[in-house]
Amino acid sequence: MTITAQDTAQLSPGVTAPLGFRASGVTAGLKASGRPDLALVVNDGPLSVGAAVFTTNRVVGHPVTWSRQVVADGVVNAVVLNSGGANVCTGPEGFLDTHRTAEKVGEALGVSPGDVVVGSTGLIGERLPIETLLSGVDLATNALSTTGGPAAAVAIMTTDTVPKTADVTVDGDFGTWRVGGMAKGAGMLAPGLATMLCVITTDAVVDAATADAALRAATRQTFDRIDSDGCMSTSDTVVLLASGASGATPDPEGFAAMVTAVAAQLARQLVADAEGAMHDIAITVTGAQTQDGALAVARAISRSNLFKAAIYGNDPNWGRILASVGTVPEHVAAFEPELLDVSVNGVMVCRAGGAHEPRSLVDLASQREVHVLLDLHAGTEVVTLWTNDLTHAYVTENSEYST
Amino acid sequence: MTITAQDTAQLSPGVTAPLGFRASGVTAGLKASGRPDLALVVNDGPLSVGAAVFTTNRVVGHPVTWSRQVVADGVVNAVVLNSGGANVCTGPEGFLDTHRTAEKVGEALGVSPGDVVVGSTGLIGERLPIETLLSGVDLATNALSTTGGPAAAVAIMTTDTVPKTADVTVDGDFGTWRVGGMAKGAGMLAPGLATMLCVITTDAVVDAATADAALRAATRQTFDRIDSDGCMSTSDTVVLLASGASGATPDPEGFAAMVTAVAAQLARQLVADAEGAMHDIAITVTGAQTQDGALAVARAISRSNLFKAAIYGNDPNWGRILASVGTVPEHVAAFEPELLDVSVNGVMVCRAGGAHEPRSLVDLASQREVHVLLDLHAGTEVVTLWTNDLTHAYVTENSEYST
Repeated sequence: MTITAQDTAQLSPGVTAPLGFRASGVTAGLKASGRPDLALVVNDGPLSVGAAVFTTNRVVGHPVTWSRQVVADGVVNAVVLNSGGANVCTGPEGFLDTHRTAEKVGEALGVSPGDVVVGSTGLIGERLPIETLLSGVDLATNALSTTGGPAAAVAIMTTDTVPKTADVTVDGDFGTWRVGGMAKGAGMLAPGLATMLCVITTDAVVDAATADAALRAATRQTFDRIDSDGCMSTSDTVVLLASGASGATPDPEGFAAMVTAVAAQLARQLVADAEGAMHDIAITVTGAQTQDGALAVARAISRSNLFKAAIYGNDPNWGRILASVGTVPEHVAAFEPELLDVSVNGVMVCRAGGAHEPRSLVDLASQREVHVLLDLHAGTEVVTLWTNDLTHAYVTENSEYST
Repeated sequence: MTITAQDTAQLSPGVTAPLGFRASGVTAGLKASGRPDLALVVNDGPLSVGAAVFTTNRVVGHPVTWSRQVVADGVVNAVVLNSGGANVCTGPEGFLDTHRTAEKVGEALGVSPGDVVVGSTGLIGERLPIETLLSGVDLATNALSTTGGPAAAVAIMTTDTVPKTADVTVDGDFGTWRVGGMAKGAGMLAPGLATMLCVITTDAVVDAATADAALRAATRQTFDRIDSDGCMSTSDTVVLLASGASGATPDPEGFAAMVTAVAAQLARQLVADAEGAMHDIAITVTGAQTQDGALAVARAISRSNLFKAAIYGNDPNWGRILASVGTVPEHVAAFEPELLDVSVNGVMVCRAGGAHEPRSLVDLASQREVHVLLDLHAGTEVVTLWTNDLTHAYVTENSEYST
């Protein structure tokens, strides 16, 4: 089996890499900036398999409420996504706006509105200009193409500085098949889904249960393991569409692995484009008794503003790491404080809970990636979580966003 | 009963407001800046009652480990506190440093080292210059005075810009008695104790059990209800010393109320001096089914960097409030998203989960205090938590602290 992955530095075809999909990205006029703001992804089959995972936030956008119903039967024909407004906390009228959007797409494509997933991203609490959006659906339908993946990826950007796409091609025993995807998200990245909007497509022949299992496994290992600023969105949606157009039927494990590979590429791209970040920080917790414990410890570090500000200042401040590790309760993660080892970019600055190599040996200035390795010495489980530093640019961007 | 409280704008005598206490603050030479860095508080009795609460962090400083043992029998004769180094993660030698400090104080004062509480604050992971500290103990002992409270408050400052002291005098049925206190802390303010170091004194006649109960009740309502940056310290210590010098024996409830009053004043001063903050934000959650639920909701809001950055930008971004409220699980706090009301500085910007009054009506620019009122409409419990905004100055201070 040969797997070829796009270099993420180039823009991969994304959702139109697999056979059986068309996509488009157009300017409906929802954004004051005049940038593209409406994307459409259509599954031309022969299968119309769909699965999705959503934010675990209890305050959710109307598109999430709608789309949960859409994917319940495992059938999805299209996904329509807009930037320029999240349609969250907009009252009953906001839900009608989502409903009308799905109806309009259904009409334009000749499919049931109940098989159209809707995703919206942008500011919370303001109605969308619905007539503008509905006119945009006509534009997007006319622009659909089998090479439209990159345009769709551009149209879902908000504060993102680059579009995010990825794909893999598998030349396997059962034939050649592909997985592609796109994502947006540059803030409010936190667990229980870390991206705001993501569409993954495949031309493999899979049923709804296999698609659902693969997507859940993939998000658990990827989007749920990035935590840029600890803030969970109301709108996070990851959709997987399968067209079956390749005719190839992979084994479920191999399929899940490839969905995970594409999701991992997209998740990494999200971290790399997080609002105002200067460093991408991989926190690896080893020697944990359980996976959940390792994740809780990694999460505690990733949520420490003091640690994140220190990394921004190129300061391998392991004291702040240990202080945040110590906040994890004993029943969640077993460890003895006097056994903890911490390495930053390969330099063990803390050994057995105390100072070891001089922190001046740690180079944080010459590259964007930072690798923190924490050994709990309590077991054999390992987890890596990605986060970002806390910078002036983050504060600027998030204090000026809506005003 | 008459209660007179110092105006917090003036410097109250703090720990020397009650009878039976001497204190001092001197420059031992622990700080490169040459500022005062060693404080001593001595209880001259006739009682030597002591109680304390400490950080719940599992990674703790040696002074915390030591002082837990000291207060176990309810007897404390003195508290020695240094800034210029936290003595955390410094290995077995670090514990010996704390031990030697207590021995030196015991020798200087003629009391048992086992009745001397030690508190240290500053950077984690570096040994204290112990000989310098021990010489400082002689200086501090010589400087002890019944008016030394303010000097002691100055000597425990790290990144604090002002010393924090408070006191109340109670002219009650059982005689006149006083409670005084001092605190330091301008970062790493989070629950499970929000301050780094605090000493509260009283000349009331109370036993160890009463003192302990009063202190726990007070911290639960005050220091545990401020959360500046979500980062829990390794060194948080709040000590209560009772001298009995007034001869007045208050009822336990009245006593706890006055300890709470002093703790509340100190906690409010900590928030007002939090690192780099431009706004002090009171988050009041009403209509909660339980106190714990209300607190969890308030805490979720106070931990949202997006919300805190918005307040810095004078933006009453209620969408970010609702997004953070939605992260609290149902079993922790009951509420329906479509019933939530949010007011900011008296303007109801969100009603029934949707936009209400225009956000432009909210004035955030003309004063430092911000009042956020969230009604869950799920019960009758109310909790107020204080936090700060996320500012450029916070990032600057915490990215440049140790380098």
